[in-house]
Amino acid sequence: MSTQMQQIVLASRPDGAPSHDNFRLESADMPTPGDGEVLVEVHYMSLDPYMRGRMDDAKSYAAPVPIGGKMEGGSAGKVIASNAPNLKEGDMVFGPFGWATHAVADAKMCRKLDPEQAPITTSLGVLGMPGLTGWHGLMAYGKPKAGETLVVAAATGPVGSMVGQLAKSLGLRVVGVAGGADKCKTAVEHFGFDACLDHRAYDDAKSLREALKAECPKGIDIYFENVGGKVLEAVIPLMRPFGRIPICGMIAWYNAGGLGENAGGAGLTAPKLWRTILVNFLSVNGFIISNHWDRFPEFINEVAPKVASGEIAVQEDITEGLENAPQAFMDLLTGGNTGKAIVKVV
Amino acid sequence: MSTQMQQIVLASRPDGAPSHDNFRLESADMPTPGDGEVLVEVHYMSLDPYMRGRMDDAKSYAAPVPIGGKMEGGSAGKVIASNAPNLKEGDMVFGPFGWATHAVADAKMCRKLDPEQAPITTSLGVLGMPGLTGWHGLMAYGKPKAGETLVVAAATGPVGSMVGQLAKSLGLRVVGVAGGADKCKTAVEHFGFDACLDHRAYDDAKSLREALKAECPKGIDIYFENVGGKVLEAVIPLMRPFGRIPICGMIAWYNAGGLGENAGGAGLTAPKLWRTILVNFLSVNGFIISNHWDRFPEFINEVAPKVASGEIAVQEDITEGLENAPQAFMDLLTGGNTGKAIVKVV
Repeated sequence: MSTQMQQIVLASRPDGAPSHDNFRLESADMPTPGDGEVLVEVHYMSLDPYMRGRMDDAKSYAAPVPIGGKMEGGSAGKVIASNAPNLKEGDMVFGPFGWATHAVADAKMCRKLDPEQAPITTSLGVLGMPGLTGWHGLMAYGKPKAGETLVVAAATGPVGSMVGQLAKSLGLRVVGVAGGADKCKTAVEHFGFDACLDHRAYDDAKSLREALKAECPKGIDIYFENVGGKVLEAVIPLMRPFGRIPICGMIAWYNAGGLGENAGGAGLTAPKLWRTILVNFLSVNGFIISNHWDRFPEFINEVAPKVASGEIAVQEDITEGLENAPQAFMDLLTGGNTGKAIVKVV
Repeated sequence: MSTQMQQIVLASRPDGAPSHDNFRLESADMPTPGDGEVLVEVHYMSLDPYMRGRMDDAKSYAAPVPIGGKMEGGSAGKVIASNAPNLKEGDMVFGPFGWATHAVADAKMCRKLDPEQAPITTSLGVLGMPGLTGWHGLMAYGKPKAGETLVVAAATGPVGSMVGQLAKSLGLRVVGVAGGADKCKTAVEHFGFDACLDHRAYDDAKSLREALKAECPKGIDIYFENVGGKVLEAVIPLMRPFGRIPICGMIAWYNAGGLGENAGGAGLTAPKLWRTILVNFLSVNGFIISNHWDRFPEFINEVAPKVASGEIAVQEDITEGLENAPQAFMDLLTGGNTGKAIVKVV
């Protein structure tokens, strides 16, 4: 076994969009698992938009990554040494291993995977945190009803594609928004959306709104919010009475610094937003999936068979090599990926 | 019986704050009730902030009052002629009689009042639409729990005082915001709030926020929203995780025209607002009480005994004479009243 491991640490905090300067690849001594711990060789590492928030030191739902600290994240890998009774060498697990080739973790923080049941990469996406986010957000706050219309952005991402496919299976009209014609094609042909609009083809929120209006002739009952910005500004006036907006992210604004500016949504003021919630009797719910892990077993029972049968389609965008994680992450924040962003580490 | 009645019509649409020019007092022929209708002599007429919205022709939850049309509103009065089997001359009723000395209405739109049980003015406030608004909004969306902290503005108004008193009775810490030292005194001494801040004593949202922070050391679990503007901007950063914001109004912004400007809440942008909802897992619900009349019997069963016993205190601000309704309404919009604004018509 190698005596060294590789990891990527936060070198400095980004001002706006992250750059390579904010990351540093380091070698470190291979850690040794203590009592109840395991040493894991990371095979696949997840890249998710929430990681951008951890790079800032703004008040949020989770503590920031400290300067010099290992970038956080969920990964799937193989147990190569165990001091825990319930995991043994060779077991495949998912856990909070961060941006690294190896990690020591409390066995209680690891979830054992069955590679026979589904490829282990699905634990990062469709059958992991993003899938649960889409399922829980849609069912608990979106409260979908057959015949209604749902709009979701980042339509080919792991959250958006889960939301759209579940909503379709429940009889809703599903309209996606994505960046680029290829992604829109994927949303319709691979994920079965009724329509998908390329937000890059519209100069401003107003023209995007006109296009959305044509695809949502009855208005929008559910806007599953994961982007903010121009899409939110386009959607807000189209919300129907008693509409629901689950909010799990706002990637368009993650790079906007203090959010003092309406980056990409300059026509939307706080009073306009607030008034729409009032006059359309909207229900708006922010949530972060880490508060709802208790729903994971129910989610897996319901969704894993649909993934196995192909009823819920999967798309993954895999980058090779830990050293390429920063670039892949920056691409993710600007929509460069199609499907769940994953780094193949080993 | 007089052959003439008086009414106030919308002469023109206001641009910002209403002025006397927007209203016109008119005489009209006394109407005659048709089949199933009654003729009512209006004794007390309600003034409510929502009426400002009806003066605009912006898209909202209700159709605007047409130019030249009678100003809408709920009133209490006496049946003086009846063509309906369930109501007879002399019955006291509440109904949508508008700004007028007399009105004909479908008997099905009238609710019979028992003046022995409670003064008929309470049908306009504490036991009427505003009371129901406070009760339903607090219970259905605020989901109060003992030990939590609630903030409500317009604390001495009929909605705010209901919300605050109910929350106190449920074991919450209740902090009001009101305009003027007298109102704050009323909130604490008459309505039993733990504290009440005079927003006029604070130049900006930031200084109001500091004062709120001192009164809400654990943060705010429920912000019952009826004003918007500076109070909202002050409150937003103090919201606790899993907080709830029922929205029933935003009077600070009603005169703001197209809401393109953050009148009195200039530091609050849409991204900041949206981000707070996300990172604090807030639940924000807009509602208008006309969608929830089905809860009225439950409300009356629960709250009427508390009003009768004095557990829920009442305060009314009564203006004499229909002709003084426009001035009283303009005063209401700038916080000139203390307690439920009512016009004594006859």
